[in-house]
Amino acid sequence: MGDKKILCIGLVCLDIINVVDKYPEEDTDTRCLSQRWQRGGNASNSCTVLSLLGAPCAFLGSLSPGPVADFVLADFLRYNIDISLLVEHAECSFPASVVIVNVRTGSRTILHMNRNLPDASVEDFAKVNLVEYKWIHWEGRNASEQVKMIQKVEKYNSTVPEPCRITISVEIEKTREELYQLFPYGDVVFVSKDVATCMGFCCAADALRGLYGRVKKGAVLICAWAEKGADAMGPDGTLVHSDAFPPPALVDTLGAGDTFNASVIYSLSNGKALQEALSFGCQIAGRKCGIHGYDGIVSK
Amino acid sequence: MGDKKILCIGLVCLDIINVVDKYPEEDTDTRCLSQRWQRGGNASNSCTVLSLLGAPCAFLGSLSPGPVADFVLADFLRYNIDISLLVEHAECSFPASVVIVNVRTGSRTILHMNRNLPDASVEDFAKVNLVEYKWIHWEGRNASEQVKMIQKVEKYNSTVPEPCRITISVEIEKTREELYQLFPYGDVVFVSKDVATCMGFCCAADALRGLYGRVKKGAVLICAWAEKGADAMGPDGTLVHSDAFPPPALVDTLGAGDTFNASVIYSLSNGKALQEALSFGCQIAGRKCGIHGYDGIVSK
Repeated sequence: MGDKKILCIGLVCLDIINVVDKYPEEDTDTRCLSQRWQRGGNASNSCTVLSLLGAPCAFLGSLSPGPVADFVLADFLRYNIDISLLVEHAECSFPASVVIVNVRTGSRTILHMNRNLPDASVEDFAKVNLVEYKWIHWEGRNASEQVKMIQKVEKYNSTVPEPCRITISVEIEKTREELYQLFPYGDVVFVSKDVATCMGFCCAADALRGLYGRVKKGAVLICAWAEKGADAMGPDGTLVHSDAFPPPALVDTLGAGDTFNASVIYSLSNGKALQEALSFGCQIAGRKCGIHGYDGIVSK
Repeated sequence: MGDKKILCIGLVCLDIINVVDKYPEEDTDTRCLSQRWQRGGNASNSCTVLSLLGAPCAFLGSLSPGPVADFVLADFLRYNIDISLLVEHAECSFPASVVIVNVRTGSRTILHMNRNLPDASVEDFAKVNLVEYKWIHWEGRNASEQVKMIQKVEKYNSTVPEPCRITISVEIEKTREELYQLFPYGDVVFVSKDVATCMGFCCAADALRGLYGRVKKGAVLICAWAEKGADAMGPDGTLVHSDAFPPPALVDTLGAGDTFNASVIYSLSNGKALQEALSFGCQIAGRKCGIHGYDGIVSK
């Protein structure tokens, strides 16, 4: 299993991050304190973190060619992420989000692009040579299509000996009803604080108790809760908790959740116990919040 | 003079334009109606308009290579703008502005990048083969350096017969003291509403009366005042005015000033009288405010 890769399926986009010391009034000109471009998207961010942690990994998602794609592709390569599965859509525009960060208040104002780029389909997934992978992670998006992909993996798993099976994880981050059909499909299911709150749960432990019935037999359900740390529940029904590891100063929380997910996946995929994986996830995510971007999440 | 070009000197940048139907409140998530990339910068925009009006033109400014530069270069070429004078700075970052356009009001809110790209220098200007040009327009930026360039043109003008002389125009748009040294250097001087207001004038006519003393003998001073139209004063001291030509609906005012400048330059460079040039400028600028971008400012 040593050289097998982890595959993350979901979004890659461009985040254009503008740091200001006062939120701009309408119809004025403001000079930013700084501006940076960052490859974004949950699955794409998780690949970055996996790669920094030392796991060979690949990304599957859609992309439209052009100058932004060139930037994004160069950045994937900089992190040694396998992008041979990228799907190009020539006619589409590349998704980009503009983020205005106010350093005085910490507020983030986000302008999302009205994107027309289709998510990866089950046909795109058919190109995946499953034997190369030990773990596949889905960022919940086009859930019905993603279920079909997962069923292909389940079928594959049923034909190979136990050690060759692929672990399936799913992330249910956005509060969209359609995504909730993914609960029974992961060996590991990440449910967000947002989704849990929206469903009426007021802490991670409550969410896990309330939602564990939705996951498949033997699965692990994980819920991170920002500065409260993260909880998990495995097949034996006991709750596992890790406190957060806050950095000396909160600098940049963008992608902290993706960092947590990747770190937990990395740890579990290397055979660590749930408690250890959860603590590792909180630790790396905490370190991420203390730096801009991702370089530096792994201590040298 | 038929084939001689108009040269515009100043900034080219990337405008990332986000169209919304409500200006975003701080700390919210907004989905844009649309998002587009547009080559921006005053001098670069004026080249676009000159080219659409049918004038051969060239751009002189700095650029740093990379994916954004590729986009910008392709766009210059799409508009047949001569970019043989572009100066590359490999070590710099490309200036990008985030623009939020509110379709309900036409307002444009701009976030400028903290740029480190040097403006074109007098050494860069030395490469210009002056005999190819009938008009050179400076977007006021690094004014001291620009004065040196203008002096080179004045020297050239003194050695050639009258019909071969190059008309010099300058734009004083930003309220920076340094730029005000440009007033005595243009045959045509564009002063912005912003600068006039900042100096305490409350309408274009007042600004022209107050500032005409700063321009050189025989020069034309022009001041556009948004929906109030534009005024100009020539060597005979009489005020010329044109009303604005508002479009049926204000859609996008970004670059309206650059459109006005280019249209006036185009008109004057074709021998039109000041009144006609001013009306033409207001007309084309008005049309621009009714459409996104520039394609369509010239009726077919």
